[in-house]
Amino acid sequence: MHAYRSHTCAALTKENVGDTVRLSGWVHRIRDHGGILFIDLRDHYGLTQVLCDPDSPVFAEVEKVRSEWCIRIDGVVKARDESLVNPKLPTGEIEVFVRDLEVLGASQELPLMVFGEQEYPEETRLRYRYLDLRREEMQRSMTLRSDVVASMRRRMWDKGFREYQTPIITASSPEGARDFLVPSRLHPGKFYALPQAPQLFKQLIMVSGFDKYFQIAPCFRDEDPRADRSPTDFYQLDMEMSFVSQQDVFDTISPVIAGIFEEFGEGAKVDDPASWPQIPYAEAALKYGTDKPDLRNPIEMQDVSEHFRGSGFAIFAKLLEQEGTEIRAIPAPTGGSRKFCDRMNAFAQKEGLPGMGYIFWREVQNPEGSIACEDALNAMLEGKDISGTDASRVESMTQTEERQALLKKIYDLHKTGDAFDREAAKNIVKQLFSKTKMEAAGPLAKNIGPERTEAIRQQLGLGVGDAAFFLGGKPAGFQRVAGKARDVIGEELGLTDTNRFAFAWIVDFPIYEKDEETGAVDFEHNPFSMPQGGMAALEGDPLNVLGYQYDLACNGYELVSGAIRNHKPEIMLKAFELAGYGEDEVKKRFAGLYTAFQYGAPPHGGCAAGIDRIVMLLAGTSNIREVIMFPMNQRAEDLMMQAPSEPSSDQLMELSLRVIPQE
Amino acid sequence: MHAYRSHTCAALTKENVGDTVRLSGWVHRIRDHGGILFIDLRDHYGLTQVLCDPDSPVFAEVEKVRSEWCIRIDGVVKARDESLVNPKLPTGEIEVFVRDLEVLGASQELPLMVFGEQEYPEETRLRYRYLDLRREEMQRSMTLRSDVVASMRRRMWDKGFREYQTPIITASSPEGARDFLVPSRLHPGKFYALPQAPQLFKQLIMVSGFDKYFQIAPCFRDEDPRADRSPTDFYQLDMEMSFVSQQDVFDTISPVIAGIFEEFGEGAKVDDPASWPQIPYAEAALKYGTDKPDLRNPIEMQDVSEHFRGSGFAIFAKLLEQEGTEIRAIPAPTGGSRKFCDRMNAFAQKEGLPGMGYIFWREVQNPEGSIACEDALNAMLEGKDISGTDASRVESMTQTEERQALLKKIYDLHKTGDAFDREAAKNIVKQLFSKTKMEAAGPLAKNIGPERTEAIRQQLGLGVGDAAFFLGGKPAGFQRVAGKARDVIGEELGLTDTNRFAFAWIVDFPIYEKDEETGAVDFEHNPFSMPQGGMAALEGDPLNVLGYQYDLACNGYELVSGAIRNHKPEIMLKAFELAGYGEDEVKKRFAGLYTAFQYGAPPHGGCAAGIDRIVMLLAGTSNIREVIMFPMNQRAEDLMMQAPSEPSSDQLMELSLRVIPQE
Repeated sequence: MHAYRSHTCAALTKENVGDTVRLSGWVHRIRDHGGILFIDLRDHYGLTQVLCDPDSPVFAEVEKVRSEWCIRIDGVVKARDESLVNPKLPTGEIEVFVRDLEVLGASQELPLMVFGEQEYPEETRLRYRYLDLRREEMQRSMTLRSDVVASMRRRMWDKGFREYQTPIITASSPEGARDFLVPSRLHPGKFYALPQAPQLFKQLIMVSGFDKYFQIAPCFRDEDPRADRSPTDFYQLDMEMSFVSQQDVFDTISPVIAGIFEEFGEGAKVDDPASWPQIPYAEAALKYGTDKPDLRNPIEMQDVSEHFRGSGFAIFAKLLEQEGTEIRAIPAPTGGSRKFCDRMNAFAQKEGLPGMGYIFWREVQNPEGSIACEDALNAMLEGKDISGTDASRVESMTQTEERQALLKKIYDLHKTGDAFDREAAKNIVKQLFSKTKMEAAGPLAKNIGPERTEAIRQQLGLGVGDAAFFLGGKPAGFQRVAGKARDVIGEELGLTDTNRFAFAWIVDFPIYEKDEETGAVDFEHNPFSMPQGGMAALEGDPLNVLGYQYDLACNGYELVSGAIRNHKPEIMLKAFELAGYGEDEVKKRFAGLYTAFQYGAPPHGGCAAGIDRIVMLLAGTSNIREVIMFPMNQRAEDLMMQAPSEPSSDQLMELSLRVIPQE
Repeated sequence: MHAYRSHTCAALTKENVGDTVRLSGWVHRIRDHGGILFIDLRDHYGLTQVLCDPDSPVFAEVEKVRSEWCIRIDGVVKARDESLVNPKLPTGEIEVFVRDLEVLGASQELPLMVFGEQEYPEETRLRYRYLDLRREEMQRSMTLRSDVVASMRRRMWDKGFREYQTPIITASSPEGARDFLVPSRLHPGKFYALPQAPQLFKQLIMVSGFDKYFQIAPCFRDEDPRADRSPTDFYQLDMEMSFVSQQDVFDTISPVIAGIFEEFGEGAKVDDPASWPQIPYAEAALKYGTDKPDLRNPIEMQDVSEHFRGSGFAIFAKLLEQEGTEIRAIPAPTGGSRKFCDRMNAFAQKEGLPGMGYIFWREVQNPEGSIACEDALNAMLEGKDISGTDASRVESMTQTEERQALLKKIYDLHKTGDAFDREAAKNIVKQLFSKTKMEAAGPLAKNIGPERTEAIRQQLGLGVGDAAFFLGGKPAGFQRVAGKARDVIGEELGLTDTNRFAFAWIVDFPIYEKDEETGAVDFEHNPFSMPQGGMAALEGDPLNVLGYQYDLACNGYELVSGAIRNHKPEIMLKAFELAGYGEDEVKKRFAGLYTAFQYGAPPHGGCAAGIDRIVMLLAGTSNIREVIMFPMNQRAEDLMMQAPSEPSSDQLMELSLRVIPQE
């Protein structure tokens, strides 16, 4: 028999009854039921119930065993009593009677329980990561991550891509974040850098003629701590293709991403890649307040500036006199209560804005309208034309489907002719009109008056029970909060379909942006993207230049980012010139790529997908450390391995370095 | 039509004749044949012959095109004349007549030609790596590497392994080589290290209960320059399993490695993994002078000390009086010529030894023997018994097949009886015996005399035309050269089967070694291996302790190295104690692993296979830079990206570092 196991802890079934088996694993739980010891023995694959009664030759040893000891047992498989079968467990039909025991690895008292769902401080979990990782949820997250990455590889291979490894010890890359530096021993005073991304290398691979590249690539950035990102590194599915347009990249990567979410999304709806919208950056900013919209949320913001220009709401009216300002409405279907509106207003204040104005539409008592309508009805019943003076009032009172149904009933009664029961019709009319009419509530509505309010309502397509929120100023000032408010509104009102992955390509990013303070023009995103319109486009206003640059948004996250690259050296120089970089500087800073482009560079483009992010979405967590085997804590420390640590003076000497003492 | 191509440059066949197609690629070669321009257009997939005659609307533009320009052409597919069909080229049946041209990327004058097989200095190749990589051989090596790694992954997945990524920015690892350090900005004065291997992490993954791990893992070592290794990093197929013995690891990884060599070995013989020998380290050292023997070479060395003890060869005889010395013979079948023996002797001198003694066996004139044999034959012909005094001489003269065949002829003549032609028989006898007998040549043979020489010959199983070389002293002093000599002898004599991959597991490595100078005992290999015999084995002489530690040798290279790990904290402490490490030091230096072992560690083991090495073997190169996309040069510089480089003073300030000026 094998030294450690004849079966895994997930393998035994009724078929094995009577067999002598050998199992190894950890003591998940141990209980004493009337002198019989019950052990749930756990390995990576599952659990098996193991029993030891006082007749067993190793009873005394088994009694000493504790939680998380690693043991090997020999025993005989027996069928459980019908009543004790556990249908949830693959091994639930059997139990194993222990005849022999070997302690493979004993355990001290545990700083963290593996069994059960007790919460522990993150520092404890990271310090004893090997115990934390034994927990069922962590086993699941780590295998999920592994399986997602494997599936990505399979899918890329199937599309004719090959994985090529790019250097990890290399030169500083111009991604704009902070590099991790690595001192060179052989070249004192010089440093390597860890790559922020393999972008330059993948472009060089295209110049080298490899056509289709991908890599599961570690990317290193010396970031300041933030909860949802690793302070040191992250992984990307990085890809690049030659001789392609933007649409080719979409057609290649979209099915890969969709396939991953279908494979691991546990049945959540995944939109067909053919239907993924392509939303221009400017439109996304307007409608969703962000370039990574959550499209599970149907709310789309609208520009409602015209309704406020010169209106009685002085704050907005005055704001609109400044250039570059606008009023943005967030419609909130079913959000029509003061309580909800006030809560959202408070949310905006918490986010640093003065607040969000709102209007909501509700039903109010309406005896006056009821009389007018009765008159109209009477006129109708008498065969008179009701499209006259009171008709608009009737109309405005017949918004809801229910009321329209009632109105139709009267028409129907009327059409039957002689059998028409006037009293019955009158009763219906009372039901119809006596109680309510729609009213726009909120201070904003009062300030701008009913006509503008109604115009806004119609533009936004809202009705009774709905609300709208308003933010004003320069979009850059309120857009972020508007986008967040849209998310919160969608979630709180249950409009966001939580069992769905909704994707959209965000396209047409501007190449440049203006620094509000200095007025200087700089790259908005990535300096290596091809401007739409090529060289000609760079002759006009830089701020109007759009790039072949794109992101894939999913459920409010940016999952993928990419571009068609600027592979023409003369356009590259011009593009950098507009951002204030002289020719000499470009040739120096990006010497490798710039020089390569002198030797027959092909048109190329690609993208990179955030693997940690994708696994987080699939695992339903917003903490990146839940999907990394051995993560740093938020202070960029590895508590288990004790990194970083002080080097020896020999090491520093070899590197020709001295540490500057801290004050 | 697609913006860049309707087909790749490997796709068009006779089926496409008459089609209008679009191709993109590089101008591999351009020739002018009687006013018609012939372009070999190349992409990653292949070549297509493209023609432009003066009737083409773009003739003038095509005339400007030069080698390695990246172009897009539109054209019409025509069948080649039967006589011009190129059966070696998938597109050899057709050619494309150019109707439109777009220059996608022009090229300056080339520092390195892609077409042809011109040799360039390595510095030029690395500086313009993107041009070098366009060459057919480099395209092939890089796709080979990518395909090998992909196949490894597939094979590991198929065996139930999952790939888990371990940290790259981490703590110093105890592999014994020099770490690359990474200064921490958030923790001034502290440094991370890049992992020399993921060993500690993979062991922690086992403690975490994951059962089967693998990773295509980058390993970082700050190595001094050497031709056949990268000065910064290399890649391993790293794997680890729980609840296994050494044989389980062999049974798992052997078919993976064999499969890779079968898949990519281009028909070279790959020994069946079931037949791979397991050779104890001590035996490998004796027979092959190395723990990574090339088993394609049938030569096995032998200890021949006994034949020299007290012999007339004073150097060896005296040597053997010292303890720990021996005389080792390298048999060299078919190496029996003075010229060859002298060349090998010179080789040993070049390797720093005083030389290699040798004996070789040759045929010499032997009239005396001839007479004796004739007598014997006569006796035989007269029906007398020939097994007497002269028989041994007859025997020693009938070594070769040819002579035995002649002897048989005489017997046959004799057996025919009456028709026996004595004269004819005599002539045959002359042919047989008149000319030669075997003689042991070389000064060594003379010194030790014929009996010892003959005993050596018989021990080594050699004969006429063969040689043997002799090295003496302490094995540590000559063994390396002996192993090299064995390789050279096998190659020069054509004994080594060059079209074969021959594997062997080298097992039973000693855990400890003694420093010859200080006499101190230290770890020979890896301090984390389980000693055979466990705790009990550590009670005796440390130098006798063998480990569950193993290498896989292939064709003279170490391809895989691994061990069953020491997972018991008490045995770990004892093992380190023997090597002079106190308990406190172990607990401090290996805190992560040592602590983890306190909490129910499973028995586990694994190995790591060198990917660069495997690809080098398959690509038939001994230069590691031929199988790495963007390698460092031997001074650990990236000439293309200009790494390492001087950091800005801001960067140094942020890291609290100062560079010590060089004297």
